[in-house]
Parts: sequence; structure tokens; C-alpha cells
Amino acid sequence: MKKILNDVDNIVDEMLIGMVDAHGNLLDRVDGKNIIVRRNKKTDKVALISGGGSGHEPSHAGYVGEGMLDAAVCGQIFSSPGADEIYDAIKAVATDAGVLLIIKNYSGDVMNFEMAAELAAADGIKVDKIIVNDDIAVEGSTYTVGRRGIAGTVFVHKIVGAAAEKGYSLEELRKLGEKVIENVKTMGMSLEPCFVPTTGRKSFDIADDEVEIGLGIHGEPGTHREKIKSAEIHVKQLLYEIFKHSTAKTEDEVAVMVNGLGATTLIELYIANKAVKEFLDGRGINIYKTLVGNFMTSIDMEGFSLSILKLDEEMKELLDARSNTVAMKNI
Amino acid sequence: MKKILNDVDNIVDEMLIGMVDAHGNLLDRVDGKNIIVRRNKKTDKVALISGGGSGHEPSHAGYVGEGMLDAAVCGQIFSSPGADEIYDAIKAVATDAGVLLIIKNYSGDVMNFEMAAELAAADGIKVDKIIVNDDIAVEGSTYTVGRRGIAGTVFVHKIVGAAAEKGYSLEELRKLGEKVIENVKTMGMSLEPCFVPTTGRKSFDIADDEVEIGLGIHGEPGTHREKIKSAEIHVKQLLYEIFKHSTAKTEDEVAVMVNGLGATTLIELYIANKAVKEFLDGRGINIYKTLVGNFMTSIDMEGFSLSILKLDEEMKELLDARSNTVAMKNI
Repeated sequence: MKKILNDVDNIVDEMLIGMVDAHGNLLDRVDGKNIIVRRNKKTDKVALISGGGSGHEPSHAGYVGEGMLDAAVCGQIFSSPGADEIYDAIKAVATDAGVLLIIKNYSGDVMNFEMAAELAAADGIKVDKIIVNDDIAVEGSTYTVGRRGIAGTVFVHKIVGAAAEKGYSLEELRKLGEKVIENVKTMGMSLEPCFVPTTGRKSFDIADDEVEIGLGIHGEPGTHREKIKSAEIHVKQLLYEIFKHSTAKTEDEVAVMVNGLGATTLIELYIANKAVKEFLDGRGINIYKTLVGNFMTSIDMEGFSLSILKLDEEMKELLDARSNTVAMKNI
Repeated sequence: MKKILNDVDNIVDEMLIGMVDAHGNLLDRVDGKNIIVRRNKKTDKVALISGGGSGHEPSHAGYVGEGMLDAAVCGQIFSSPGADEIYDAIKAVATDAGVLLIIKNYSGDVMNFEMAAELAAADGIKVDKIIVNDDIAVEGSTYTVGRRGIAGTVFVHKIVGAAAEKGYSLEELRKLGEKVIENVKTMGMSLEPCFVPTTGRKSFDIADDEVEIGLGIHGEPGTHREKIKSAEIHVKQLLYEIFKHSTAKTEDEVAVMVNGLGATTLIELYIANKAVKEFLDGRGINIYKTLVGNFMTSIDMEGFSLSILKLDEEMKELLDARSNTVAMKNI
């Protein structure tokens, strides 16, 4: 496996330098830390912070900016950032209105974000948290108690971010975040593993004619493996599982995310989206908005995930609100 | 090689259905044709049309919309669209102000776009063309006389698109387009070939420790192969070649595009961008704007290209102008 890198021990630092070099109009970096913050800090709103291991680009630094996050804490590849670095991020962007942490449900992330929240609370900073657990594939998995947080997290960033920009209070944002989490369900599948440059290994091995259904964004085991089939069949299969958990039904409105895991072509993602629309049309569910692209990757994994977010009027309005970040402008 | 597809003979049609399903607010399709047009057609401006073989997504349909293209003609994978389909696209979007064709320099594209232009001219439609040849790697290559047109084409779409929106005449747009083409220079490299689903084959074979320098976006031969080195070394190598052709010098302002070829991670692209900035800083060249991402892909090729566009005040203003397309919003 070849990669265009310099020093594997310095990947995240160099990536963040290159990112701020490219997008200095939107982003800034906390000196000496793997923390990306919004360039034009807004001090009269609740600050939103997300993060986790790197390797999921553009998550989360690509969502820092107007209408989304105030900071992203970027751990090493597939490793939670330390509590001290998260604490630094909180101190960097905290406002009198408070700080909301948006945490993907992985044990390491939850532990370190909670520890950082305690440190910040001891300083008198108002901190609250929401934990995203949209992956309906498996309950309890490698590194996780409960369901994992995956691509649906980006909907949380967008909707809660828009509400923060509008001046929602910390408590209102936590409740809104919990509503989004309650209503967003995701499941993915993989054709090929990712190559983890820091270990020099693929995240798993899989036969030439097999796919894995329901796996996590670090290559954690899914529900099963099977022979590869058509886009239509796999999309139906994922949505069938998702709708065991989603309460969206006929005449409801949903937002759809067809998320590439890194090395998946837009050709495949759009063909998958065609099948998604056919499935939802068949159930009489209305699609309010569709996002297709790489939003939450797994380095260079081949595969995709589907997220379905059941909407209400409040979420629709916030989804439509202005955002200006590297990876998501007005959608 | 696995792909999430249905019918390999119907890839482009299904992709375009899925694309319009996702982005119906911005895009529309000419019935029964592989032509994507802007949803809200503007009739008081010159219409811009680009296109070529598919497999380069988001090029070109992702750039259809306000401030960029009026139509994209989407050939089969790595195959030029037929003259008749290009002619249909011209008829679909032509205005009294005329039509400008933005053609990447491949013999098939040039031939078919020119034939379509003749058919349209015979109908009394004002048509002109510009041919993008930004790839400085090789002169004359498989399927091409002269230099190939690659990722720099996206800068042409953006700048000429903004000018069309502002009401430039057909002649002014052609001249502006020629200026952008004159000033944009690109060179790429590849680590791994792409898998071409319609042929069931990889576009080439390469050793596990080798890269190819200067190859085209269909896998046409580059200048040479060599052992893989660091991001810093490869970036310097590409820029050194680019600056044999670019006239940008100390104190000039440039736009940079670090373009992924499909399966390349943002990690690598940002690390490459760090090296780009170091190189340009070393020459005292000022970076006005940097784009990092997948703009002109080669299906799922691993690798990237670098484009350097030497700017003047007119191009800067147009680069900053509003755009609202699937793959490029205000930048």
C-alpha cells in the first residue's frame, strides 16, 4: 500500500498545517495543539466542539466554521484525542453561553471528552454533551458500549450548529441534539478495508468476492459477510435494517446522506442514491434533502453508509440555514 | 476489483438519475439524454457547456449551476460523448448571446465538440470554443495531439462561468478563457491505476514500490516511473516541472488546486498542500486561494495533480464571485 506522506509519526500535525494553509480564511489552529478552531470566533453563542480520532476527514475539522462547529479536536489516526487536548479546545472557544460537546459513541472518546468536561466545569465553564449513536448495525462492538456514532454525526453538526448560530441556549441545544440523534439512523457496508498508515496494515482482510455489512468506521466487525451483489440489493438491505429502527413512515419527510468511506467513486454513490430514492418512494416517504459525498470517511476504505434523518419543521429550517465551512457550505 | 453497481452497460444513465434525484434543486436532465443542465436556466447570458467522458466526477456535471456551467454532456466512461449529444446540449441551453464550449484537449472530445458546433452554427446559433491544455507533463500522448486538458479545466469553469453570469459577451468570454488557459499549468502523479468497470480491467499495472509521474486522467503514460518517495519530494518535483511552463514569479499571486484522482485521502492531499505552500513561499509567490479535494478524478485512481493558476485582478474577482453548484459553492 502506497501513500503520499512524509513521516508516519507526524501525519496529523502535517495534515492540519496543510489544512490551515489552504483554508486560512475559515480556520485557525491552536498553537502547538491538534485543535482546529473557527477563524472568526463568535462570542455570543454556545460553542460547539466535536472531534475524535483522525482518519475520518473531512470530519471533523472540515465542519468548523459559521453555522457548524467552533472547534474540532483531532486525535491521532483512529485514536481518541487526550482529555487534556479536549480541555484545551474547550478553553479556546468557551463563551459565557457555554460549550456543547458532540461526541461519537466510542468508549475512548466518551471517556476523554467527559474527563475534559469535568476539568472545564471545575474552572466554572458551563459544559454539556450529546453522544451520537446512529449506527444501527450492532449494539456493543470493539471499543464501544452501545451503538457506534458514525456519519449521522454530520447531521448533528449541521442542525445543532445552525441553532447555536441562531442563539439557542445550551440546554436547548442539548435537547435539539438529542432529538436529531433520536431521529438519525445509519448503516454502512464495506468492499475493501482501509490501509492504516500508522500501523502499516489493512484494517481487515476480505475475500475478492465478499462485502461486509454493518461495519464500523474503523473497520470494527459488522453483522456478517456475504457475496457482493448489485447496488440495488445492497441499498435495499441496508435500508431495510435502518427502517427497523427509524420511525419514519409514509408522508414523513427525511434527509438522506449517502456517505463514501474514502475510496468510493461518486459514480457508485449516485447509483446507490438512485436505489435509495426508489426505496423511499416505494414507502411513500418524502425526501427533503439529499447529501452525496465523503462526509465521514474511514481513511481509504471502499464502501459507503446510508443515513436517514426523520425531519420536523425545526430540523428542516436548521438544515437549510446558512453554513460556511470547508466541507459543507449552504446545502 | 469490487464496485457497487447494477448494470455495467448502464452506469452513466443510472449515475445521472441518482445525481438529479439528489440535487434536483440545482440540476435537471435533458429527457433521454446524458446531458445535465442548470435547473434555473438564465436566458440573458452566454451559455457555457463542457463535458467529455464520464469517470472524472464531479467533473463536469458537478459544476453545472449558477456562476459556472449551463450544461455538461456526459459520455460513457472515458469515452467522448457523440457530436449528436453535444449538439442536443447546445440546443437545450443556447441563448441569443451565444454558446461557449469548454473542451478538454483530447482528440475525440475536440472532434465531436467541433462537429456539434458546426451543426449548431448551421442552425444560426452563435457558438465559440476554448480548448484547455493545462497538463504540462507530455506533449502528444495517447488520444491527444498537443497537451492534455485536466484539472485546470475546473478553474476555467469557475472564472469563465462567473464572467458569463456577469454578462460578458461571447467574444469576451473566449478571450478570458484563453487567458485562464494560458495561465494555468497542471501536472499529476499516480500511485495506483483506476479500475475501469466497463472493461473490467485496471487502467495500467505498476509495481508495489513505484509511482508514475505526469500521467493523464485516463491513465495515459506520463513522463516516467520511479520509486515512491516522500510527499515533499514528489510535490517539489511536480512544481519544478510546472514552473518550467508557468510564468508566475516572485510577488505574483496564484491560485492552487491540489486535486485528488479518486481514491486519495484528504490526509495526503493536505500534507501535499503543506509542501506546495513551502515551495511557493520559497519562491516568494503569494497564494491567493487554495482548493483541496476531488475536482477532476480518474474513477478511483490513487494519486493527485497540482495546478497553479497565475492570477490578475480580473481573474481574482471572478474566482471570488458567487457560485452555487453541486461540487463548488462560493470558494
